[in-house]
Amino acid sequence: MRLLVIGGDAAGMTAASHVRRALPDCEVVVVERGPYTSYSMCGIPYYVGGEISAAADLVAKPPEAFRAMGMTVHLGTEGMSVDPAARTVRVRELGSGTERDEPYDELLLATGAHPQRQPLPGLAEYGHVVHTLDEGEHLRHHLDAHGEVRRVVVVGAGYIGMEIAEALVRRGLEATLLDRSRQVMKSLDPDMAAHVERVLRDFGVDVRLGETLLEIRGDGSLCGEVVTDAGTYPADAVVLAMGGRPNLALGRSAGCEVGASGGLVVDDRMRTTVPHVWAAGDCVESVDLVAGLRRNVQLGTHANKQGKVAGLNLAAALAGDGTPPDATFPGVVGTAVTKVCQWEIARTGLLESDAAEAGVGYAVVSFSGTARAGYMPDPGEVRVKMMAERGTGRVLGAQLVGTGNVAKRIDVAATWCQLGVTAQDAQFLDLSYAPPFGGVWDLLQVGARKLVKELGLSPQL
Amino acid sequence: MRLLVIGGDAAGMTAASHVRRALPDCEVVVVERGPYTSYSMCGIPYYVGGEISAAADLVAKPPEAFRAMGMTVHLGTEGMSVDPAARTVRVRELGSGTERDEPYDELLLATGAHPQRQPLPGLAEYGHVVHTLDEGEHLRHHLDAHGEVRRVVVVGAGYIGMEIAEALVRRGLEATLLDRSRQVMKSLDPDMAAHVERVLRDFGVDVRLGETLLEIRGDGSLCGEVVTDAGTYPADAVVLAMGGRPNLALGRSAGCEVGASGGLVVDDRMRTTVPHVWAAGDCVESVDLVAGLRRNVQLGTHANKQGKVAGLNLAAALAGDGTPPDATFPGVVGTAVTKVCQWEIARTGLLESDAAEAGVGYAVVSFSGTARAGYMPDPGEVRVKMMAERGTGRVLGAQLVGTGNVAKRIDVAATWCQLGVTAQDAQFLDLSYAPPFGGVWDLLQVGARKLVKELGLSPQL
Repeated sequence: MRLLVIGGDAAGMTAASHVRRALPDCEVVVVERGPYTSYSMCGIPYYVGGEISAAADLVAKPPEAFRAMGMTVHLGTEGMSVDPAARTVRVRELGSGTERDEPYDELLLATGAHPQRQPLPGLAEYGHVVHTLDEGEHLRHHLDAHGEVRRVVVVGAGYIGMEIAEALVRRGLEATLLDRSRQVMKSLDPDMAAHVERVLRDFGVDVRLGETLLEIRGDGSLCGEVVTDAGTYPADAVVLAMGGRPNLALGRSAGCEVGASGGLVVDDRMRTTVPHVWAAGDCVESVDLVAGLRRNVQLGTHANKQGKVAGLNLAAALAGDGTPPDATFPGVVGTAVTKVCQWEIARTGLLESDAAEAGVGYAVVSFSGTARAGYMPDPGEVRVKMMAERGTGRVLGAQLVGTGNVAKRIDVAATWCQLGVTAQDAQFLDLSYAPPFGGVWDLLQVGARKLVKELGLSPQL
Repeated sequence: MRLLVIGGDAAGMTAASHVRRALPDCEVVVVERGPYTSYSMCGIPYYVGGEISAAADLVAKPPEAFRAMGMTVHLGTEGMSVDPAARTVRVRELGSGTERDEPYDELLLATGAHPQRQPLPGLAEYGHVVHTLDEGEHLRHHLDAHGEVRRVVVVGAGYIGMEIAEALVRRGLEATLLDRSRQVMKSLDPDMAAHVERVLRDFGVDVRLGETLLEIRGDGSLCGEVVTDAGTYPADAVVLAMGGRPNLALGRSAGCEVGASGGLVVDDRMRTTVPHVWAAGDCVESVDLVAGLRRNVQLGTHANKQGKVAGLNLAAALAGDGTPPDATFPGVVGTAVTKVCQWEIARTGLLESDAAEAGVGYAVVSFSGTARAGYMPDPGEVRVKMMAERGTGRVLGAQLVGTGNVAKRIDVAATWCQLGVTAQDAQFLDLSYAPPFGGVWDLLQVGARKLVKELGLSPQL
């Protein structure tokens, strides 16, 4: 039996490793376009900023380690197309240009995503992307090698763009953060995003919103300026962080269905719509358990869990002993966190706009609190926004922006969202309290109480 | 109608305030033994240590504020006995010794707890307790006024004792922490408590375990030494932090049933076994939802929630319009957190000894992780211990000891324990991930995965 995996990062290597261990007699072959396996994409901004010194530190497990487990790992090799009838994938060695067919009994597409690149003048020549570790290395070497780099423009004010802009300021550079949206972080409601924007400005990032990138100009070797529909910014380097799009070419060539979200359609076993072709990670769409629709969510935590589920089910399929592939990935609720300067930012569930779009009736509350007891020195500041459904009272979402221990608190609300916990029940949970960690009523329970009142439910504590 | 509340801290004032607002025509009378209302007992160690400068900072709401709401508040007044037939409480003004009867239609006992004091020589003369804010003030004034205080012995290595010992070392004093138990923090399993003990020792606290206090000796004005069954320790001051016992005298005089846990028996509405007598806070016992038995848990967070539930139901009872008292306090799962030096300590659910005692079959896992991604500078160190039930897989408990953002993560496990979430489901929850906050698998989900393996359940991720 032969498992072929296309893509050597979180989802692919998790699945490959599981099959390798579960089925010692199964051949496991991994094809990866880049030079690395299993690295932390999320760590790239910290590496660019110099907080992490070596790119190798971000590699969880190098190719040799997988080879030592008995896998075949082809680096610098790209999957070109799938022949589902023949059960082969055409691959090309990027160095030599040589092509060949790799056969499979089961195929896992863990092809990830690629940075959005608009066909604008100068982007391909001068724009750095930081979607893969070698791209991150390229940017960092550029910043390290060119002492004259002083002004950097970052395009795209999502997680990665903000993290990169902060990292640049920490390096002593001037950073301009551009976005065509009127807010940073579209994964937050505008009122919560406004706090994050203020934090970035206070830290020294030149934030320019509602501006559309038109062109990057340079002298053919180094870039000189960035042109938007509202102005021109001198730029010794440009970083493009406009989000990622699923890599679909291989799936499309196999005839796999692509969903409205732009990701490959998979069932809860991680099967695509084509027999013997599976998919996991940034290239698939997941069920949003709160909104009840499908989204493409590109996060390492899902890639790992989906890779594990795919691995379990692939092992069952490859074992050929009738074991059913019974591991299921239940879906996501949109939990995400980041840190901008000393501020922690977290979200889970629906935004107000999501709820409106999904036609869900909701109550929303918004308030400020402290990260430690109010009488403690440096109590911190936390902005909280929470929503619950009219009628049922189930918690629909939460957003937190604050100083102090804030981010991981979102996991409590995420658990509520995923399990359908109501605001009435949430207010009575036995959550922790001590002065260094907040007030006697946990902030999420303050929110739950306010929601119960807003919804007119009982009991109102 | 007349509500009489005995005890002016969290539970009592929360209930009184609710009734005051809900029933403008109802007379609300509060009797409090001390000079303060509504203050944070949990903040006392930080005040003693000087992190918080004034005792008044710990007062959430002073008596005048409650009086301005239209309540009657008698300070320095103690409830002596209840006549449930006459519906009166005998009270005594502590200053003048005058006694009188206070009538009630409904009575709330929010009498709290008192420090355990053993009848040993010298304890009453020289031992400081820190159970009430005025006791905390007394200790701090003693430390501030007596420049010669250099060596302090703290008896009792629970939350308060550890927090006080740390505060003393921060003040530049020598602190010895004594306990007759062989471990600090009996709310942790011994293996987890050993980490906390190490932290205290590393910080400079002289920890002496397995020693029983016999006597405090002094010159009649200042103490000189503490004698245990294992040695003698020079001591310029002694702090007794041996835990609290519910104040039951008033409830007993009314004929209220006292449970095996040592707290007043109440139903989920906060009614005692005597008509028109209610109770809430540190003096009652609560249902432990994981173990399925009753415990006396003295924590401000429960006092607030129970006070609110009592207030809602008291308002219904006092309204006299047939409104049923339908607010219920569901119970507790034993969540608690504290901070010792730079270490955060958290627990929820059962200890191994609890599970053994309750006859619950369990699997346990114990491992180390990091509070941030392993490749980040200063990733921190977290020790994790988790338990789940054999057969069902439901999560029974978790203990965390670590540096970095650790404590509030226990609220996720607390939610699991309270809602009966299984380890299988827990491993798939959409919990947050970003390098400043941990690895791609949340530590509690790493624990859930290990538990699923230990239990032989499926799917094993």
